[in-house]
Amino acid sequence: MSPLTPAELEQRIRAVGAERYHDKHPFHRLLHTGQLDKGQVQAWALNRYCYQAAVPRKDAALLSRTADRELRREWVRRILDHDGGGAEEGGIERWLALTDGLGLDRAYVTSMAGALPATRFAVEAYVAFVRERSLAEAVASSLTELFAPSIHRERIAGLLESYDFIDDTVMAYFRRRLTQATRDADFALDYVKRHAASRELQELCVDAVRFKCDVLWAQLDALHHAYVTPGRVPPGAFRPERTC
Amino acid sequence: MSPLTPAELEQRIRAVGAERYHDKHPFHRLLHTGQLDKGQVQAWALNRYCYQAAVPRKDAALLSRTADRELRREWVRRILDHDGGGAEEGGIERWLALTDGLGLDRAYVTSMAGALPATRFAVEAYVAFVRERSLAEAVASSLTELFAPSIHRERIAGLLESYDFIDDTVMAYFRRRLTQATRDADFALDYVKRHAASRELQELCVDAVRFKCDVLWAQLDALHHAYVTPGRVPPGAFRPERTC
Repeated sequence: MSPLTPAELEQRIRAVGAERYHDKHPFHRLLHTGQLDKGQVQAWALNRYCYQAAVPRKDAALLSRTADRELRREWVRRILDHDGGGAEEGGIERWLALTDGLGLDRAYVTSMAGALPATRFAVEAYVAFVRERSLAEAVASSLTELFAPSIHRERIAGLLESYDFIDDTVMAYFRRRLTQATRDADFALDYVKRHAASRELQELCVDAVRFKCDVLWAQLDALHHAYVTPGRVPPGAFRPERTC
Repeated sequence: MSPLTPAELEQRIRAVGAERYHDKHPFHRLLHTGQLDKGQVQAWALNRYCYQAAVPRKDAALLSRTADRELRREWVRRILDHDGGGAEEGGIERWLALTDGLGLDRAYVTSMAGALPATRFAVEAYVAFVRERSLAEAVASSLTELFAPSIHRERIAGLLESYDFIDDTVMAYFRRRLTQATRDADFALDYVKRHAASRELQELCVDAVRFKCDVLWAQLDALHHAYVTPGRVPPGAFRPERTC
């Protein structure tokens, strides 16, 4: 098979998002349209914390694998964006402002003791993917960020409108990601288009986006299963107080 | 904290099984009491294949980490039991006899293309655990086999009685595991009791059993979510034919 043109490759990648990105998951529809109670939103926020907390490890794994200083200089910004530094508090801190605002104990959230095992398995699969696959695939697996701005805009509007226990101050995470994710995704897409030269590697990069969509979708499946139908929370996981 | 006696450690480990082993999962209740249709049993069998297929890699990871030849001589039997050799067909082949009997295409099953991403994430979390944690924890994570014989007995009786598309010839896997799992679990329990000397390591070994229960439970949660309520199969995963 002959290589795709860069434009064709981009089209293939965007088609994966159109089919599989987690904006299509029913749990997000429930979340964004005010159909969850506070305990269910807490469950979402504390599980999603595991993902946030793993992202800098994932990005560090990518940095550790490349001798390309230009790539490292660009990619290290993702670690700084998440972990913060200097006057910048960072995305993880902004996520904890959200879980604080939801009334969750910070030590409990950061311990991840109440997170669903399935969340941890999915998140660690992502870290392992970036550590083990080719550099082009590792970069490509970040490309779900191409599809993120619309879900973030929908989420900001939907959460603020729908839940009286969420106010504007705790939404800083999503606002900041609107610009960060766009900048990062543009760079990563350009990198993949320039470096995935063979058809084989191009197909692997498309698969990497599909894999990452699976990682995100599986997290919502696990939340949906555990917290939408009563009585399905697995042993040891967070149980919302019924008074919420 | 002072170390537990070996008997206390065994008691703690067995208590994890009593609380968290997947014989308590509602999906197993449905499976064993004839409440699933053929497509749902197919989904279970082809997802569980991913676990079977990963077990020899997990055991090889353990072998690769120890200079203790006696441990290797004992543990290598698990690889032979699963992969087969000589006249012994092995557990994976016996599992494929089950999926054959259920009318699934063997190439489709072994490709794992239709397996739930959550299944693969859970299974690979188990392989990674054995590769990364201490040897005592790696051995301890196998100890869910202490609890397996009763579920296998229940499964043999329940599946044969409940489903006209399952006959005795395809149940060989479970019959063989009745004796194998008991022998393996006895050895592993003895190993953990002898080698986990500090209280800290003992607690980590109890946690390892808990982790492994989570790995098994998460696989059933994913099956339950995708295949019990209609319309929840994630993108790309196996879809039973409605004629089943």
